[in-house]
Amino acid sequence: MVDAFVERLDKAQAVRHSLICVGLDPDPKRMPVRGVAEFNRAIVDATADQVCAYKPQMAYYEAFGSPGIAALEETVDYIRSEAPGVMIIGDGKRGDVGATASAYARAMFEVWDFDAATVNPYQGVDAIQPFLRYPGRGVFVVCRTSNPSSGQFQNLIVNEGEGAVPLYRRVAMAAEGWDASGSVGIVVGATAPEEMMLLRRDHPDVPMLIPGVGAQGGDVAAALRAGLNRAGRGVVINSSRSIIYASEQASSFAAAAREAAIGLNEMVNRERGNLRGSIVVQGS
Amino acid sequence: MVDAFVERLDKAQAVRHSLICVGLDPDPKRMPVRGVAEFNRAIVDATADQVCAYKPQMAYYEAFGSPGIAALEETVDYIRSEAPGVMIIGDGKRGDVGATASAYARAMFEVWDFDAATVNPYQGVDAIQPFLRYPGRGVFVVCRTSNPSSGQFQNLIVNEGEGAVPLYRRVAMAAEGWDASGSVGIVVGATAPEEMMLLRRDHPDVPMLIPGVGAQGGDVAAALRAGLNRAGRGVVINSSRSIIYASEQASSFAAAAREAAIGLNEMVNRERGNLRGSIVVQGS
Repeated sequence: MVDAFVERLDKAQAVRHSLICVGLDPDPKRMPVRGVAEFNRAIVDATADQVCAYKPQMAYYEAFGSPGIAALEETVDYIRSEAPGVMIIGDGKRGDVGATASAYARAMFEVWDFDAATVNPYQGVDAIQPFLRYPGRGVFVVCRTSNPSSGQFQNLIVNEGEGAVPLYRRVAMAAEGWDASGSVGIVVGATAPEEMMLLRRDHPDVPMLIPGVGAQGGDVAAALRAGLNRAGRGVVINSSRSIIYASEQASSFAAAAREAAIGLNEMVNRERGNLRGSIVVQGS
Repeated sequence: MVDAFVERLDKAQAVRHSLICVGLDPDPKRMPVRGVAEFNRAIVDATADQVCAYKPQMAYYEAFGSPGIAALEETVDYIRSEAPGVMIIGDGKRGDVGATASAYARAMFEVWDFDAATVNPYQGVDAIQPFLRYPGRGVFVVCRTSNPSSGQFQNLIVNEGEGAVPLYRRVAMAAEGWDASGSVGIVVGATAPEEMMLLRRDHPDVPMLIPGVGAQGGDVAAALRAGLNRAGRGVVINSSRSIIYASEQASSFAAAAREAAIGLNEMVNRERGNLRGSIVVQGS
């Protein structure tokens, strides 16, 4: 019997004493080394003891064509061997009709061996279901994102059975409904702490993948206040550019990435400590 | 000065006397030959004179890992050399925050050289804008899809400025608004002819990519009635499985694919002829 993804993630966070996810987004304009796999190996070596997860963003590998995808495959192998127990979240925000979604799930879980994948809800449950057939794996349903135009559709008020709520909350309700076995989380941007608070109120246990801290301007303390569950976990704080491009010098990028990851992890753990009292009160 | 994508597509349809797009979805369970590139070459050889476009669905290449992506790259090169003028639509339904969307656009247009890409609107305009910076290239914004659960979110009634409309119509309005230079179309499933009719009424000129005929059960005549523009074009009728897997025998699949493509093209052109009178009346 395989543990559910939600339990595997929780265990990784507890054992590693970290809620931090480092986004592996190799950008040829900013990487100080030529090779994608080489760059990622250096980042993993520098940060593995500070994180609960890595999150390769598919777009950055695709932008190198097939050699980029091969470098992604190398990177996953490297994380498995050098940082066992760390979750790997394939960030592709895939979503399509059933047969196609099955092929995406095969790619994400069988070929690339990710522990979880981000998925886009626009096509409804058909697009998600094939991902839920993999024991121990999980999805993060894109719900309320961190970009400036995120509200354009996500904040539209929709009417129906459950009354009038913004679309993103409706998506979160559906996502929780899809979860038969501890395999569904949601994506909520750090730039939207008020929305995050409403989502946490309505869904006390759903894991949240939180991008948008650092380069995108999200406030870590506000995100933790809004997102932590009653156990003081349940959120994955992702930072990409602020860590992996903390320095863009070949001689110093790995050390700078390590320093940035330690800084973020310490800050998050300090805030968790500060918040623990108030969270227990809220939760009781 | 490069022609706009909408004009390039229209020209391909007029010159080739075809509204047909063949979906290149290599499925290891159904292909009668081992190699993805080999399979696609045979399909292209068999159907090139019957189509205005090919549409590789990214999921099916990703499901082979990096060798699948290499086979996709080979396939694009082959179409460019053997079927010049045919549009290639990369179907990945990508959508993400701005910096990531830029990387996706780079992959789709610079690396894989697609003429157009399908994109997902859930994150708003930020996710689309980077694709619109490529002269001559286009996007098809996922609007109303062909799968059974498509209505779960797409048909929700949203309230705002323009009054109460289903989300998919709101997305189409936004999509038309994003189009400064003839580069934006929408995806509307053949299984939703009534929704398609409303969309065509509101957006007389927007190109529609129409999946879901054949294996997914959409009715070609109904889709044409609903979707054709006043010129009797403006729709791209996509068929994947009904053509490429018309036979699953190594000895006959190419000939069967050719026969299926000819049959579909003839049927579409016959219907266009039948409808021409009524369309002119509707449009005047």
